[in-house]
Amino acid sequence: METTKFLLNEREMPTSWYNILPDLPEPLPPVLHPGTGQPVTPNDLAPLFPMGLIMQEFHPESYIEIPEEVQSVYHLWRPTPLYRALRLEKALGTPARIYYKNESVSPAGSHKPNTAVPQAYYNKKEGVKRLATETGAGQWGSALAMGCMFFGLECKVYMVKVSYNQKPYRRIMMETWGAKVVASPSTDTNAGRSVLAKDPDSPGSLGIAISEAVEDAGPREDTKYALGSVLNHVLLHQTIVGQEAMKQMEMAGYYPDIVVGCIGGGSNFAGLVMPFVKDKIKHGKKTRIIAVEPEACPSVTKGAYAFDFGDTVCTTPLIKMYTLGHGFIPPGIHAGGLRYHGMSPIVSHLARLNLIEAIAVHQNATFQAGVQFARTEGLVPAPETAHAIRVVIDEALLCKKTGAAKNILFNLSGHGHFDLGAYDEYLAGRLKDYEYPIELVKQALAELPKVA
Amino acid sequence: METTKFLLNEREMPTSWYNILPDLPEPLPPVLHPGTGQPVTPNDLAPLFPMGLIMQEFHPESYIEIPEEVQSVYHLWRPTPLYRALRLEKALGTPARIYYKNESVSPAGSHKPNTAVPQAYYNKKEGVKRLATETGAGQWGSALAMGCMFFGLECKVYMVKVSYNQKPYRRIMMETWGAKVVASPSTDTNAGRSVLAKDPDSPGSLGIAISEAVEDAGPREDTKYALGSVLNHVLLHQTIVGQEAMKQMEMAGYYPDIVVGCIGGGSNFAGLVMPFVKDKIKHGKKTRIIAVEPEACPSVTKGAYAFDFGDTVCTTPLIKMYTLGHGFIPPGIHAGGLRYHGMSPIVSHLARLNLIEAIAVHQNATFQAGVQFARTEGLVPAPETAHAIRVVIDEALLCKKTGAAKNILFNLSGHGHFDLGAYDEYLAGRLKDYEYPIELVKQALAELPKVA
Repeated sequence: METTKFLLNEREMPTSWYNILPDLPEPLPPVLHPGTGQPVTPNDLAPLFPMGLIMQEFHPESYIEIPEEVQSVYHLWRPTPLYRALRLEKALGTPARIYYKNESVSPAGSHKPNTAVPQAYYNKKEGVKRLATETGAGQWGSALAMGCMFFGLECKVYMVKVSYNQKPYRRIMMETWGAKVVASPSTDTNAGRSVLAKDPDSPGSLGIAISEAVEDAGPREDTKYALGSVLNHVLLHQTIVGQEAMKQMEMAGYYPDIVVGCIGGGSNFAGLVMPFVKDKIKHGKKTRIIAVEPEACPSVTKGAYAFDFGDTVCTTPLIKMYTLGHGFIPPGIHAGGLRYHGMSPIVSHLARLNLIEAIAVHQNATFQAGVQFARTEGLVPAPETAHAIRVVIDEALLCKKTGAAKNILFNLSGHGHFDLGAYDEYLAGRLKDYEYPIELVKQALAELPKVA
Repeated sequence: METTKFLLNEREMPTSWYNILPDLPEPLPPVLHPGTGQPVTPNDLAPLFPMGLIMQEFHPESYIEIPEEVQSVYHLWRPTPLYRALRLEKALGTPARIYYKNESVSPAGSHKPNTAVPQAYYNKKEGVKRLATETGAGQWGSALAMGCMFFGLECKVYMVKVSYNQKPYRRIMMETWGAKVVASPSTDTNAGRSVLAKDPDSPGSLGIAISEAVEDAGPREDTKYALGSVLNHVLLHQTIVGQEAMKQMEMAGYYPDIVVGCIGGGSNFAGLVMPFVKDKIKHGKKTRIIAVEPEACPSVTKGAYAFDFGDTVCTTPLIKMYTLGHGFIPPGIHAGGLRYHGMSPIVSHLARLNLIEAIAVHQNATFQAGVQFARTEGLVPAPETAHAIRVVIDEALLCKKTGAAKNILFNLSGHGHFDLGAYDEYLAGRLKDYEYPIELVKQALAELPKVA
């Protein structure tokens, strides 16, 4: 029987995160203060984040040691297994070899704890007692609730009201780990109260929830804010995924020709691919590295590369990124983790430098791929992950035509246990594909902030 | 850092199942034909099961080779990891070492696929096209839906109506793998129609669902029936768990002093413990082996050891087992997998021979243990599994008093991702403890079948 599972033991887990910043062929554009238009300083960020994380945003060295306390928590599910999807290959009749890194094995069900745990750790270390955050579908909120639990921090999650009502299991999971969860807009903040005053039935949005969490954290000495994607330090923490995968591909005996991940804010994708991007920069590797986004929210394939706000209500610094405009509200696709108007600065920069490419796919095609994966490999993937699988299958089918036995690696970023409602709609033929809403994007892009 | 994770690679996965029958110090009482009162023959069982499985019920040898096709599917999640629960130990302040075998990593989320996959395989091998089964909370139905998918069999699941309505995600998971799921009582069978004729709003029961599945399979040439616990061949397939755990405990450097599992029909418990029971029988080991059952459905601690029907409507052969009476309907505790009036013949026999012991625990105490586990080790366990964890914690706290550094091993039989509604009730203080319903049991035991 062929080997299909490549395992590392605890001692083989990487003990440093890989920081791509010093290896970039051109430096990353700075983040700007929205008032002054000048690059933000560490002190500008201090009300929201602990200095340990802020300094990682600007870190000059290629590797940052993972604190022992964080490694010890990682060991609860890391190193994660790398699988060869032999049954999927056979079903496709492809000569390609398909490998996936299984990040769904964390207790929260996705890659998100890789950053939630160190974020909780660095906050704890600097005396913070409490973290506030927002969550949409709940993957990030769950991960942070768990991270805070390990380090004895309180955790307050502002959960977009429509998800709070539709996904009670995610809420209960956070509460089981001890977090306090409220539906956003809530009456706990000025931002929430002002929205409710205008519209008591507001379904909420990620933009509103961010405003609530930031307002919660800003003035309180004991509380900081935590973000689950986009920022450099978040992507940094995810590089444990790619470093493990590289070792495991060595065990498998192949270097990937194609590496694939889905992108919302960009962290699971960047975490897997950055060590392979390094090989392109440093060793001239020709790997194709593909980011997959929803056709309904195609920031990299159709957005502008510009300075924009990270949130809807214009409270964050200005970030140079691919964006559909901070005012753009993506259509209600089920891959809630990919409904973000922008893209992390690092992923945007890598796309700009042609070190990675992006592809947009439709919702029904992604669920078709997700079901095909479940019916061959067993595991039911998250709708976000199914975006990556769609492109993996397409590339494998291309190999069938050309006869090329390419090695394809992708990040199985999460399971779909809490997304089965979406599978139900797909199986019943009720799922809608959304065309790229070009007029709404035009309007949103017209309102990009002016930067000198 | 101390090692907390003990992994086997694919080549180290056991390639045989362990069959305890020839090693028992006294032979297992035969299963009786309800009409004749004589031991059933393989032919009596042929309408419901393929001969490959039937012969495993009576197998005379200690080991049965696992077919390569089954091993290949097992590799999708097996060997499963064994963990040391160091964070739980610290939280308890116990000198005990606590280890758990994590069966929640299968795509269906529990140990059930260990038998669903070979059951589908042996049926396929004998030309069966379609399997019918019942499911309560959905763990077994999910596992069989997945097992059938791997071997191209159709799968029809009669899901108890109250669960069908309360747990749509389990239903969708089965459908995602291609199974057909109906709420039981259904209009698809005489049994279902007759129940609906009397009570159109019947919430259903496992007993009714079994009758529907058996009726579905019985007369059809192309269809057989599949059961997720109780029978010898089901327990046999689960011994892969205990054999792996034994190797992993060797890696950890300790032989367990106490081995714990929860019991409903008995399969996850038996699968873990039977190799350790063998060591007691053959090598005089003094291991304490503890089966944990709900106080609301305490078949081994409070039931009679007698011949009884396996189902509520008296269609199965008569099984010598600990039973609360086939007419006993257990109170509505959330650990649906433990709501069974009887106990597998092998587990009953082992208890009778004092090779294992049983303990009954209350619902709130089990959820308290489940939450403590989630808040230390991260993973949210299934309510069934939380029964085992309750006793593990109690034993570890006893070690704290006595100072004994005992080694405790338990089976983490499943995750609680689809049981979070029960956690919600527990956290809100709404969960009820059910006293042992002694009068109902007395009535049910008065109706045990008479055997000469």
